[in-house]
Amino acid sequence: MSVVNFAEKFDLFSDLWSPKVIAEMNDYQFKLVKIQGEFVWHDHSDTDEVFIVIEGSMKIEFEERTLTLSAGEMHVVPKGTRHKPYAEQECKVMLVEPRGVINTGDVRGELTAENDAWI
Amino acid sequence: MSVVNFAEKFDLFSDLWSPKVIAEMNDYQFKLVKIQGEFVWHDHSDTDEVFIVIEGSMKIEFEERTLTLSAGEMHVVPKGTRHKPYAEQECKVMLVEPRGVINTGDVRGELTAENDAWI
Repeated sequence: MSVVNFAEKFDLFSDLWSPKVIAEMNDYQFKLVKIQGEFVWHDHSDTDEVFIVIEGSMKIEFEERTLTLSAGEMHVVPKGTRHKPYAEQECKVMLVEPRGVINTGDVRGELTAENDAWI
Repeated sequence: MSVVNFAEKFDLFSDLWSPKVIAEMNDYQFKLVKIQGEFVWHDHSDTDEVFIVIEGSMKIEFEERTLTLSAGEMHVVPKGTRHKPYAEQECKVMLVEPRGVINTGDVRGELTAENDAWI
């Protein structure tokens, strides 16, 4: 595998809430996603999940607090923790999580994206 | 854990080639490191290793080619692949790898840094 350029990869898609895999390290995947608006409350019962904001700003709502993440910031959502991502304006995010993780976690619905979609 | 701001974390240290852990996801660690000059040839026999350039530019020499990585770019060095990082000017990098990985891999020397140093 060669060098992966985040901006070039983001230019290749426009759909929201649909993570695209750009790299794998062992059995973990790095995914880019564009988000805007409200996601669904969900959790991942088997794994932590990393959010790294590449461009823009987003919020992650938890049951007892809300975090704001801007470009150059990251947060690790602990496994089993219910959370709801939200972005007022379009925000470009990198996710890091084990191969096979579904974007809506233990909830299935219209925002559930294709898994393992490479770009 | 709360929000981790890369710029704030980089402001907390100045030593080169000495990765600082800023977050953990499952048994993986996210580390920031400042590099300048030449590192040593080494490999990690048990794991892939991710380089993400946050600021500046660096090279990764391999036995048969050299890659250049700039801010907003990443590369996954496959496990067991001999490589030598290099940066002409100071470059700020994020590494992602399993907990316990030694920076100089299977080589020990004066550039071998303290492992699991949190910042």
